[in-house]
Amino acid sequence: MTVFSILLFDGFETLDAFGPAEIIGKLPKRYALVYASQRGGMVESSQGVRVETRPFAQLAPGGVVLVPGGMGTRALVEDVNFLSALSSLCQSARYVLSVCTGSALLARAGLMHGKRATSNKRAFDWVAAQDSRVLWQKQARWVREGSYYTSSGVSAGIDMTLGFIADMHGKCVADDICGYIEYVWNEDAERDPFALP
Amino acid sequence: MTVFSILLFDGFETLDAFGPAEIIGKLPKRYALVYASQRGGMVESSQGVRVETRPFAQLAPGGVVLVPGGMGTRALVEDVNFLSALSSLCQSARYVLSVCTGSALLARAGLMHGKRATSNKRAFDWVAAQDSRVLWQKQARWVREGSYYTSSGVSAGIDMTLGFIADMHGKCVADDICGYIEYVWNEDAERDPFALP
Repeated sequence: MTVFSILLFDGFETLDAFGPAEIIGKLPKRYALVYASQRGGMVESSQGVRVETRPFAQLAPGGVVLVPGGMGTRALVEDVNFLSALSSLCQSARYVLSVCTGSALLARAGLMHGKRATSNKRAFDWVAAQDSRVLWQKQARWVREGSYYTSSGVSAGIDMTLGFIADMHGKCVADDICGYIEYVWNEDAERDPFALP
Repeated sequence: MTVFSILLFDGFETLDAFGPAEIIGKLPKRYALVYASQRGGMVESSQGVRVETRPFAQLAPGGVVLVPGGMGTRALVEDVNFLSALSSLCQSARYVLSVCTGSALLARAGLMHGKRATSNKRAFDWVAAQDSRVLWQKQARWVREGSYYTSSGVSAGIDMTLGFIADMHGKCVADDICGYIEYVWNEDAERDPFALP
């Protein structure tokens, strides 16, 4: 059983976190979902969802972590304590996934030097400015670079998480999940209908 | 400002509730999102998301209510007190939306006699058995019948909510939301790739 931790903060984007949670939750024998935040307690999304979380300190190493985006990232890219805690968690994880502007947090935590990554196309310039040493991809639904997966905006996180599941357990496992949740998977990581001209 | 209440219960399906929340949350000048449950307090989804809710009694009439599905519906179709409270809320709402097996709750609350409705195709027989006087649609991404919208499984709730927004405010408003959240909208309510043969 692998622990799959979704790292939340005030102002996270609801679907960035709970789209992937829906996918991972369909494999309860393989993954244990945990919702965590830096200090634990209640955290509120930009859409007013108030969620109970465990503190980062309770997370064991060796699992998977997912970092959503959202307006809350605008303050967190300047929060040295948060970035340090995020860096430690990611460096001890087997896989790190981000959605939307979550990749800005990974970049500012110093985790993405020389790595290919992507983000929401509407926020792309701001994200890319967080670290120019990242190989930012302007056209990608999601990008895998070793143990790091980064996705485009919001709903692309669902597609990326299905891609992660396909990489880990085979495409038929991902297809089965799509059938159950009636999801039309955008399964080509390189096809990006939202890329800017 | 219209209050858009998402009615939660233990064992609700995460994406059924938070896919629509993501869409509605992109129109903060038009809609105020509220998360509610019969008695209020913490409610836990089937994917382990623990969410703070207000009690049904605090909801004012005249808004929009959304009823998600999930394994929790299996017990609630027998819960007379819950169904009575749900019936009152829906009868005083301007619009009622359901996702996945949420339509089983609307049916058992006696709200769907003679109305067309749909549900998740994997759970269709169980849902249809809740009330044979409903005109259950085996092939539909979502169905509008007057002030009632019912959708197919899980992610179809996102498509239906975009359809609701298009009906209320024009298709360009729905398209704008899709661009922001990078969502490939399945915009044809009658096209159902998950319909059973």
